[in-house]
Amino acid sequence: MPTPLRFELLATSGRARRGRVHTRHGTVETPAFMPVGTHGAVKAMLPEQVRAAGAEMVLANTYHLALRPGEGLVAKLGGLHGFMRWPGPILTDSGGFQVFSLPKVEISDRGAHFRSEVDGSAVELTPERSIEIQNALGADIIMAFDECTPWPADEELARQGVRRTLLWIDRCLRAHGRPEEQALFGIVQGSVYPHLRRACAEALVALDLPGYAIGGVSVGEGHELLCRVTDETAELLPAEKPRYLMGVGLPEDLLAAIGYGMDLFDCVIPTRYARSATAFTARGRIRLTHRRYRRDAYPIDPSCDCHACAGAFSRAYLHHLFGANEILSAILTSIHNVRFYQRLVAGARRAIEEGRFEIFRREFLEGYRQEEERRRPRHSSASGGE
Amino acid sequence: MPTPLRFELLATSGRARRGRVHTRHGTVETPAFMPVGTHGAVKAMLPEQVRAAGAEMVLANTYHLALRPGEGLVAKLGGLHGFMRWPGPILTDSGGFQVFSLPKVEISDRGAHFRSEVDGSAVELTPERSIEIQNALGADIIMAFDECTPWPADEELARQGVRRTLLWIDRCLRAHGRPEEQALFGIVQGSVYPHLRRACAEALVALDLPGYAIGGVSVGEGHELLCRVTDETAELLPAEKPRYLMGVGLPEDLLAAIGYGMDLFDCVIPTRYARSATAFTARGRIRLTHRRYRRDAYPIDPSCDCHACAGAFSRAYLHHLFGANEILSAILTSIHNVRFYQRLVAGARRAIEEGRFEIFRREFLEGYRQEEERRRPRHSSASGGE
Repeated sequence: MPTPLRFELLATSGRARRGRVHTRHGTVETPAFMPVGTHGAVKAMLPEQVRAAGAEMVLANTYHLALRPGEGLVAKLGGLHGFMRWPGPILTDSGGFQVFSLPKVEISDRGAHFRSEVDGSAVELTPERSIEIQNALGADIIMAFDECTPWPADEELARQGVRRTLLWIDRCLRAHGRPEEQALFGIVQGSVYPHLRRACAEALVALDLPGYAIGGVSVGEGHELLCRVTDETAELLPAEKPRYLMGVGLPEDLLAAIGYGMDLFDCVIPTRYARSATAFTARGRIRLTHRRYRRDAYPIDPSCDCHACAGAFSRAYLHHLFGANEILSAILTSIHNVRFYQRLVAGARRAIEEGRFEIFRREFLEGYRQEEERRRPRHSSASGGE
Repeated sequence: MPTPLRFELLATSGRARRGRVHTRHGTVETPAFMPVGTHGAVKAMLPEQVRAAGAEMVLANTYHLALRPGEGLVAKLGGLHGFMRWPGPILTDSGGFQVFSLPKVEISDRGAHFRSEVDGSAVELTPERSIEIQNALGADIIMAFDECTPWPADEELARQGVRRTLLWIDRCLRAHGRPEEQALFGIVQGSVYPHLRRACAEALVALDLPGYAIGGVSVGEGHELLCRVTDETAELLPAEKPRYLMGVGLPEDLLAAIGYGMDLFDCVIPTRYARSATAFTARGRIRLTHRRYRRDAYPIDPSCDCHACAGAFSRAYLHHLFGANEILSAILTSIHNVRFYQRLVAGARRAIEEGRFEIFRREFLEGYRQEEERRRPRHSSASGGE
């Protein structure tokens, strides 16, 4: 059977991995960061700008696209690649993460029941339905429908999450109608309990799936627990398959996880922060609406080569655009932040090739902490995720 | 004295003129349409996208920029050209039009008093102050501070507008500190009264200004009156100077005015309509949120070469983006609408060169009316301007 995905492991530096994911829509150099296009559009950016920023793969959300415009329409219009005019690799999540966070969702071994946010109708999301939607959307990598354990969770709740995740992976595999075109990744749950993570990982690895993800992280547990869980779980995943850390995260989270051997990442942070005027720089995050930037003639980050920085749009101009509620503020800052994340993983890739990932990480964090330290007194909870 | 502006008249077709405006920041082929960048940014577009759409000059609003970020800061950051990263020609209005439409403005021969929308402080805008701001902003063409007569206006009110406009043009000229760099255009007022328009035009023409505008139009008077006033007033303006019709307008207005010999236009319509899902096509305006576009695989206008149409973003995708409130909906539709206007004036320019402007105009309107007719029953007031 033709495989929809091939992973090459090119180099390592400590546990950090430099790899390459080949899909039917192109190749992704790893470690890779995927910008998020929830509704089939990376917010405030044209596909060509996402690509120009260096992104090779984007993520889209099954839950949102199933509700609107519906996967059938997307399929009719060329699948997600054609619909959103992104010719490169795409990953879709299973919809589970969104559904389980709805206020009135009912979950059973069968799946999840809830009301549509769009039209109020009753909706059911099961493993079979999630895969059916993802088959229609046509992404290169699709995700198993799992039960994402919230945080904090007692052991009983975490055990149920693992049980359902393993119950459902079999149903996902049976439902998968395009295994030659779309790689179905399994997701390791188990919350912060090492023996549950291990049990879940071992059962999934036995299925020889084309890739594996760590789920149930970036749900409020904070940097330390995220690191511990990723550290422990990454070791349980096969070296010859890509490893995806879902929904992560801040630059320091990414670098830690790359150090534990994770390859793929996605997060709304670069674009969401951009729309609320937070820009990432080599010296840390800055808030462009702060009065200190009102007369600042420098670009967001003088060391950056993005369209906003290379084009010499000043912090003062961006401060003004945010104040005037101009859409261009979101456009320029999104372009910058997405480029920042792509430069971060590109730097990590080079460092791994050169066998100096830990040095790269340490040097990056030293520079990055300069602005972060300055922020701390007023934004002490900012690193807890969004 | 070096002149800040030179106008070449290249060809005529009937009264329609094909010309070229040379400024210190580049050349503008006329008839030309200027996209509006109220706060120093054409809404939802990067400067390079505005340029790629074919625009050679943009307009920015003195009133808005004086309130925020303040003309002193703009001057410090390289003037408007540097601040907004638009290296080409720029025109600023005088601020009068905005100020006179404020609810609590007090107007006297001295000028206008009002409260700042930004911080509530008392603000005075006089001819001297308007020119001072425009000198600091540094646009290539600056506009006289005039009294824009509202519509409808009785003859007495219109006469006062002309009187103040002529009183103030002398003060504008005396206040103008950069006559070698910035061309100060006079504005003909007089509402719908031919003898007042004539008196105003003759007095201004006697001043031998570098260019002339028709003001007090596009204020709710409708297509027929706009045409009559433009027809009568354009004839009074010297052939060797550029003629600017302020705040106009819809495609049919532009074509009529080009036929009367007007050269320059500006309007918020292409970008404002774009944000509310109205796109211009060769067959007329379409509303992308209409259910008829939900499954429509065609681009906005199959005959268009803009990034949105040439990139094959479908009407169905745009319909979806508007429904999901995605910023990309405004970006793509703005790019399209601005390009539509630029293609319209480019077509007019070619037709004038070939001596067939009236044929071009008739053929354009025949095609354009197809969708407009379909809209009429439900949108009968849509052509009255915004």
